[in-house]
Amino acid sequence: MSNFSIGVDLGGTNLRIAAVDEHGQLLEKITLGTKVVRGKDHVIHEMTGAIQQLAAKHGHAGALQGMGIGVPGIIDIKTGMLRESPNLPGWANTNVRAEIEERLGTRVILENDANAAALGEKWLGAARDVEDMAMLTLGTGVGGGIVLAGRIFHGMTGMAGEFGHITVEAEGVPCPCGNRGCLEQYASATAVVRMAREAMTGGRGGALARAASSDSEFSAKAVYNLAIQGEEEARKIFGRVGRALGIGIADLVNALNLPMYVVGGGVSSAWEAFSPFIFEELRQRSMVYAATAPALLTDGHGASAQVEPGGPTKTIITRALLGSDAGLYGAARLPMMGNS
Amino acid sequence: MSNFSIGVDLGGTNLRIAAVDEHGQLLEKITLGTKVVRGKDHVIHEMTGAIQQLAAKHGHAGALQGMGIGVPGIIDIKTGMLRESPNLPGWANTNVRAEIEERLGTRVILENDANAAALGEKWLGAARDVEDMAMLTLGTGVGGGIVLAGRIFHGMTGMAGEFGHITVEAEGVPCPCGNRGCLEQYASATAVVRMAREAMTGGRGGALARAASSDSEFSAKAVYNLAIQGEEEARKIFGRVGRALGIGIADLVNALNLPMYVVGGGVSSAWEAFSPFIFEELRQRSMVYAATAPALLTDGHGASAQVEPGGPTKTIITRALLGSDAGLYGAARLPMMGNS
Repeated sequence: MSNFSIGVDLGGTNLRIAAVDEHGQLLEKITLGTKVVRGKDHVIHEMTGAIQQLAAKHGHAGALQGMGIGVPGIIDIKTGMLRESPNLPGWANTNVRAEIEERLGTRVILENDANAAALGEKWLGAARDVEDMAMLTLGTGVGGGIVLAGRIFHGMTGMAGEFGHITVEAEGVPCPCGNRGCLEQYASATAVVRMAREAMTGGRGGALARAASSDSEFSAKAVYNLAIQGEEEARKIFGRVGRALGIGIADLVNALNLPMYVVGGGVSSAWEAFSPFIFEELRQRSMVYAATAPALLTDGHGASAQVEPGGPTKTIITRALLGSDAGLYGAARLPMMGNS
Repeated sequence: MSNFSIGVDLGGTNLRIAAVDEHGQLLEKITLGTKVVRGKDHVIHEMTGAIQQLAAKHGHAGALQGMGIGVPGIIDIKTGMLRESPNLPGWANTNVRAEIEERLGTRVILENDANAAALGEKWLGAARDVEDMAMLTLGTGVGGGIVLAGRIFHGMTGMAGEFGHITVEAEGVPCPCGNRGCLEQYASATAVVRMAREAMTGGRGGALARAASSDSEFSAKAVYNLAIQGEEEARKIFGRVGRALGIGIADLVNALNLPMYVVGGGVSSAWEAFSPFIFEELRQRSMVYAATAPALLTDGHGASAQVEPGGPTKTIITRALLGSDAGLYGAARLPMMGNS
C-alpha cells in the first residue's frame, strides 16, 4: 500500500488524467480528447469526473495525497487565474483553479504545463540526479520551466520559465506575443512547418513540396523524416532550430549556470537533426558553458550518469526521457511536495 | 557595541577595504590604488594589511564576523580559484582565496564583484524591500548577479549572473568571450567609447570629435555629457545602450519573473539618457513584463516603496542606489549570512 496522487495534463488536443504512486509508478491513465469546442465547463466536467473515478478506484489501496493539474498558458500562481492560453480559447482571465476546486470540493494545485513537465523530468526523467535544472518544451509553442532545489521556481507571479520568448534574433520573425525573433518562432513545431512552407514558396525544397502534397497533416514530423533521409532543405530547417536553441540555451547557461538543461516536447524527437547545432552555438556563445562543458563532447545521452558524487560541476544539455508523459508525471508530483 | 565585518572591493583600479557593522553602518573605509603592475603578491599584501588594520582597530567595539572579498572575474566558488579575470592580469587560474587565507590565517569568503554588488543593493540599496532580484552592473564590462530568498544565487559553480554575455544581437559585434553581440558590447563604458569612436570614424559626431580632442581621458562620461546637452550622435549611442539592455532584461524577465532588476555601475549615471529605451523594448519584448508592469509608467525612482505588503506582484526596473559602494557593502554582508 502506497500513497498516490492524481495528475492531469490538460492540452489543447488531449486531456490525460493519471493516478501515480509516490514512487512514480503509474497506477492508471485515462486519455480523453480535449473537446475544446464544447467549452470550458464541459472540459472541466470531464476532467473532474475522471479525477473522481480514479480517486475512488485507487483510494482503497493507498491515501490520496492530492491533485495537480498542468494547463497551457500563463497562470497567476497566487490567485489561480489563467492569464493567457492560446490553446484553450475562452479560458483566459478565468479562475480555472477555483472552478475545478468548486466542482471537486477540494483543493487542487494548478501549474503551467511546461513547469509540470520540468518537474516530471526532474522526478523520473533525464534530470533525476540533479536538484537544479531547466527544461525547454518544444511543442506547438516553446515552453519552459526551472527547478531549483528540487522544486519548481515560480518567480514572482508564477511566470518564470517563459523561454519561448527569449529573443534570439533582435529583428527576427514577429511573434504574437509582441516581440520579434522569439525562440518560439524558430524552435516550435509551428515554426518548423512555417519554415518548410517558406522554403517551398521560395521555390526550394521540392521534396518538401511533395511531402506537403502527399500528407494532408503536413507536420513537423514530415519535415524531420525528410531531414533524416538527408533532404537538404529539411536539414537546413533543423539547423535553424538548433542554432536558435543554442542562442537561447547559451543565454540561460550564462545567466543561471545550472547543471542541466533538458530539451523535450514533440520536436525533441528530431534531437539527432538539431542538437549538433545547439552544441556548436553553445561552445561559441557561452563562456560559462566553455568553462564547464563535459571534457568529451557529448550529445547528452546517458548524461544523468555523468553527475559527479560531490555535486555536479559540468553543464549537461540533454533530451528529455519521459516523452509526452513528463507533464503528467510532474502534475502528479505536485501534491507530493507539500506547499509547491 | 555591534558586530561588524570587513568587506573588500578589489577592482582593476581601486582597492577598497571597509569595516561595516551589522546594521549597514560604515565604520571606516580605506581606499588604495590597485597596483596591478606590481603583481598579485603585492596587491594581496596591501589588502591583507588593511584588513588586519581595520580588524584590530574596530575589534574592541564589536565582534568581527568575518571578511568578504569581491573580485572581478569568474570564480569557482567551491575551490576559490579565479578562472578568468581580464582586469587583473596574471591572476587567472590561481587560488586567490587560499592565498588570502594563508596570509590572514583565517577563512574568507571570495565572491564575484557583480554578485557582491547585487547583494549590497539588496541589503541597503534599491532592492532592500524585495527578497528576489537581479542586478546588472555596467562598468568596464557588464556584470550581473542574482539574489534569491535574500542570498546570492551561485548556480552550479558560482558563475550564475553573467548577464554581460547574453546575446542581444545574434550576428553583432564580436566579444572577446568568443560570442558575437553580447550585451557587454553595447552597454559597458568600453562599448560607449567604442560607439563614439565609430561615430567619429563614420564622419558623424563632430561634437564627439571635439570632446575627444579636448579630453585626454575621453570616456563614457564625456559622451554622456554630450547626450544630456542634446548632441544627436551621443543621444543615439545611449539609445543603443538602452535598447540592448532592454533586450537583455526582457530575456531575464521572461526567464525569471523576478520582482526587481537593478541597473548599476558607472554607466548607470546616464540612466536618464538610456532608460526610456529599456522600457520601450521591455514592453514590446516581454509578455511577462507586459503582464506585470506597474500601472503607471515609471522610471523606477522610489520603486522600492512600491513593493506591496502581500509580496510583490509588479516588475520593477530601477537604477542602483549605492553607486560604487554596492560591491563593498555586499562584500561586507557576506560573512553575516552564514554559509554564503
